[in-house]
Amino acid sequence: MADYQAPLRDIRFVLNEVFDAPTLWASLPKVAENVDPETADAILEEAGKIAGGVLAPLNREADEQGCKWNEGEVSTPEGFREAYQTIVEGGWNGLGGNPEFGGMGMPKTLVAQFEEMIQGANMAFGLAPMLTAGACLALDAHGSQALKEKYLPNLYPGTWSGAMDLTEPHAGTDLGIIRTRAEPNDDGSYNVTGTKIFITWGEHDMAENIIHLVLAKLPDAPKGPKGISLFLVPKFLVNEDGSLGERNTLACGSIEKKMGIKASATCVMNFDGARGWLVGEPNKGLAAMFTMMNYERLGVGIQGIGAAEASLQSAREYALERLQSRAPTGVQEQDKAADPIIVHPDVRRMLLTMKGYVEGGRAFSTYVAQWLDVAKYAEDDERRQHGEAMVALLTPVAKAFLTDRGLDACVIGQQVFGGHGFIREWGQEQLVRDVRITQIYEGANGIQALDLMGRKVVANGGRFFELFAEDVGAFIEANQNDAALRPYLEPLAASLERLADVTESVVEASAENPNEVGAASVDYLDLFGLTALAYMWARIVKAAAPKAEGDTSGFYSGKLKTARFYFDRMLPKTVSLAEGIRSGSASMMALTAEEF
Amino acid sequence: MADYQAPLRDIRFVLNEVFDAPTLWASLPKVAENVDPETADAILEEAGKIAGGVLAPLNREADEQGCKWNEGEVSTPEGFREAYQTIVEGGWNGLGGNPEFGGMGMPKTLVAQFEEMIQGANMAFGLAPMLTAGACLALDAHGSQALKEKYLPNLYPGTWSGAMDLTEPHAGTDLGIIRTRAEPNDDGSYNVTGTKIFITWGEHDMAENIIHLVLAKLPDAPKGPKGISLFLVPKFLVNEDGSLGERNTLACGSIEKKMGIKASATCVMNFDGARGWLVGEPNKGLAAMFTMMNYERLGVGIQGIGAAEASLQSAREYALERLQSRAPTGVQEQDKAADPIIVHPDVRRMLLTMKGYVEGGRAFSTYVAQWLDVAKYAEDDERRQHGEAMVALLTPVAKAFLTDRGLDACVIGQQVFGGHGFIREWGQEQLVRDVRITQIYEGANGIQALDLMGRKVVANGGRFFELFAEDVGAFIEANQNDAALRPYLEPLAASLERLADVTESVVEASAENPNEVGAASVDYLDLFGLTALAYMWARIVKAAAPKAEGDTSGFYSGKLKTARFYFDRMLPKTVSLAEGIRSGSASMMALTAEEF
Repeated sequence: MADYQAPLRDIRFVLNEVFDAPTLWASLPKVAENVDPETADAILEEAGKIAGGVLAPLNREADEQGCKWNEGEVSTPEGFREAYQTIVEGGWNGLGGNPEFGGMGMPKTLVAQFEEMIQGANMAFGLAPMLTAGACLALDAHGSQALKEKYLPNLYPGTWSGAMDLTEPHAGTDLGIIRTRAEPNDDGSYNVTGTKIFITWGEHDMAENIIHLVLAKLPDAPKGPKGISLFLVPKFLVNEDGSLGERNTLACGSIEKKMGIKASATCVMNFDGARGWLVGEPNKGLAAMFTMMNYERLGVGIQGIGAAEASLQSAREYALERLQSRAPTGVQEQDKAADPIIVHPDVRRMLLTMKGYVEGGRAFSTYVAQWLDVAKYAEDDERRQHGEAMVALLTPVAKAFLTDRGLDACVIGQQVFGGHGFIREWGQEQLVRDVRITQIYEGANGIQALDLMGRKVVANGGRFFELFAEDVGAFIEANQNDAALRPYLEPLAASLERLADVTESVVEASAENPNEVGAASVDYLDLFGLTALAYMWARIVKAAAPKAEGDTSGFYSGKLKTARFYFDRMLPKTVSLAEGIRSGSASMMALTAEEF
Repeated sequence: MADYQAPLRDIRFVLNEVFDAPTLWASLPKVAENVDPETADAILEEAGKIAGGVLAPLNREADEQGCKWNEGEVSTPEGFREAYQTIVEGGWNGLGGNPEFGGMGMPKTLVAQFEEMIQGANMAFGLAPMLTAGACLALDAHGSQALKEKYLPNLYPGTWSGAMDLTEPHAGTDLGIIRTRAEPNDDGSYNVTGTKIFITWGEHDMAENIIHLVLAKLPDAPKGPKGISLFLVPKFLVNEDGSLGERNTLACGSIEKKMGIKASATCVMNFDGARGWLVGEPNKGLAAMFTMMNYERLGVGIQGIGAAEASLQSAREYALERLQSRAPTGVQEQDKAADPIIVHPDVRRMLLTMKGYVEGGRAFSTYVAQWLDVAKYAEDDERRQHGEAMVALLTPVAKAFLTDRGLDACVIGQQVFGGHGFIREWGQEQLVRDVRITQIYEGANGIQALDLMGRKVVANGGRFFELFAEDVGAFIEANQNDAALRPYLEPLAASLERLADVTESVVEASAENPNEVGAASVDYLDLFGLTALAYMWARIVKAAAPKAEGDTSGFYSGKLKTARFYFDRMLPKTVSLAEGIRSGSASMMALTAEEF
């Protein structure tokens, strides 16, 4: 098993050469005051060292050890406390945070690269900074000035960590039916009571305090999703001077035994009249939660890429070293007992499929991050709203498509190893077990697809989709005379047209029958994702082609050849997806419960 | 998590109604003397009780406990020894065995159903009878009369178990380079020395003796696959009177820590001059091994169906019971806080996709088993050879397609559970971890695809494929006037034609370029599998349609509606696969090692 190394060359290529992020940053004054290309590059370099040097070496053994629960306390695997200190010392939790409260104010385009490295190196650990950053985001966007001043300066460095407490045993997707309640006290605080499950890093021994953001219902709150409020509930109460006070009445009841990410604690949290403070307005908790969801959901998509990149690194090394059988065209390495398995077309198909998803996916997550930066930092209203629409549209695609393909890629990487892929010491099977959760949490992928098809496409009659189609169309139009790109523009346009046709027909059909949304949704998201990645691969070709000639490293020419594979072998799937979607909801809805 | 129950209704439907197996059995005199419909039915009933009542209840806890290695001894999880005794008492290992030595002589069409139930209930355990039956098959086909008399009467009941020792650390797919050697002794025995890895149930505490079939090289054997011989090496030497003698010099060096099937022991076996006996002719060990491979490979495909059936049972129950959100068309269960999630089109899509693979796959494995019975038992030479050709062609499809779709189905079943799918106590994640190995062992699925495309299709210029195409074509032709079938015949014919076109083009292209075989192979196998399952679904419709009217159970109408879904939503994938294959090997072979 190759040790994970941060793919800095590829990350820099996407950030600087495919997307020219520095030009974007310069166009956003609030970003420009915090970052310049040199700073960004130094951050990438340092993040790479932490990922490859600190977090990756802990990954295997931590999976074996797991977290341990004892009387409400959770102890983390060997090395995690020290690694967390490294994160604290670098202030990494606050990389994208608000500078007013100690954050570094870096753009998401850069933060996304940091996230990929951390998650690729050690996903179970990586969830801790991820959840803290998410909690900061919600707090920064919706908390009162007093709450922000009290908590953010300790959350950004990570002295305190954050957790998001949403799910209850009977309420996962359907948060409208939660039972946790919050009773107001005279001093403006609330007593929060209820049980939350699946709380990632809800309890642990790495930080001095843990700040829970908890969804709960006020007395007499309206029924359903419009009666949910958000509360900040700290593990230790915080005194006026900022020092830690008494233990709050919340406790970790147990931690789950899981398929993967075993080194992270997934907690049952019991709140027993725990003191908390309202974040944002009463009954608007779900909206506050969703502010950070776009960031978090992209982050989960990035986890899919991170795991797949780790799997690819190992599989590539194995394929180059493992000697087994001879090439179909005859002996390649006369002096060895067999040829390396990379001589076989099918092994190449496996590696290229992984590369198609990982490298195209990295470009796509950076593309979405660009729109997040525009949505957050553009000073021009129209530009900002354009960014918001793109973010709304693309986020469910990034979350679901990149994690579905993340599993596919890790399963393929495991397959390259043959029998060794199934054995724990080789590490490939852990990546499969770990990445599997990314398809489930932060909104299961079927829910992402409903969000895309229902709220983001059908609800606005395809208006957001038009913005995406215009962006792709403009690229095609602008590059008609680029010889290197020409072979890709026609299939890209065909795929976009296919997607546009399906979009139109589902928008129409769903006006008559609401089931058409859910019947189309998952296949539609796949079709969208494959088309978006085709656009990314075209942009990669655009950036790589001028540099490929005379490049002896194989870096640029490798990109061009992988693009060819993507268009030949991976993009055609869109044809079948469109055909399946066109058959509509009838065959799904025909069965009675007994007929299943 | 629903407890696994043997799907006897579905199994009987496929066996008796879709395929009319009793008529096949009656046409094969050697089968007819051992089985009649009543006996077969009683066997199914009893197998179902063992699967659901004995093996399934052990499955979860055994996964937690795993096997334990101590000083060369392997102890099995709680309950396994007793369960194994149940298998011994029923003589189940010998269900398909040669009656001359104590086997029951049952046809594979029946044995396949037993296998599905055992594997669906408890795959880790199910490997023990599976490996023993496989060893018996090789021994019965190739061993001397003396070896058969000495070992088979103890292997069929399972008093002794069997193991297959092929892989070495440096030699998996490429058995031609194994290093284990066998030195002849004066008494006709051999001393076998070497290390084997990944030996399923190579050591354990459930049987009195373990009989290893070991691939090794004789002194001065030719290099490569034509210099491999097969040896029988018992754990305990067997005295002339059949009693157990001294311990042979072989030992289990360790057991692997694995992703799944943790309750089975995967052993490193060290042979240190262990006494063994040649099975079959010198240097023809690989051929002897391949005799049983067709049986074993179908058995592995059946493991894929078994796991997927178990996942489907749980997912269906969960979807009917889990209350979450409301139906897109409005509230369905007014008196409850939410509707059961089965109201959602996307949840139905998930369940129907699982059903499409599981029920279509069960029919397909039974179809292949029919050909195995013809190949083994037909007295007419031409009929037997026809059977052999069909078995050769269809076996890699059954092994790889059913296990690839087995993983797909289990991943979907896990997804239906949302967050609970990732938690161990719910059982869905174990099925994913367990079924994953079926894509790898007994010839990784990429190797199955090469076997199909290379040896079974290209090598005979598509002659075997023609036999399959004729069978499907005859069915289409014969049913032109069946009103229920008519909507399916055209897409089935189109899919078959697509497959035939691709077959022809790959046969042609590979004459010029050997890489075309491996470039097409995996997609070709998928295309083949989807088409074969379409054929199966058409046959299911044929059997179910006349009974659907007036059927209040929903059984037959459910089959018809699932067929509709399969043709609407699953079969279209063939279009994309064909398009991908047509692009050929160029984009795979273009990259240098550095460019990956």
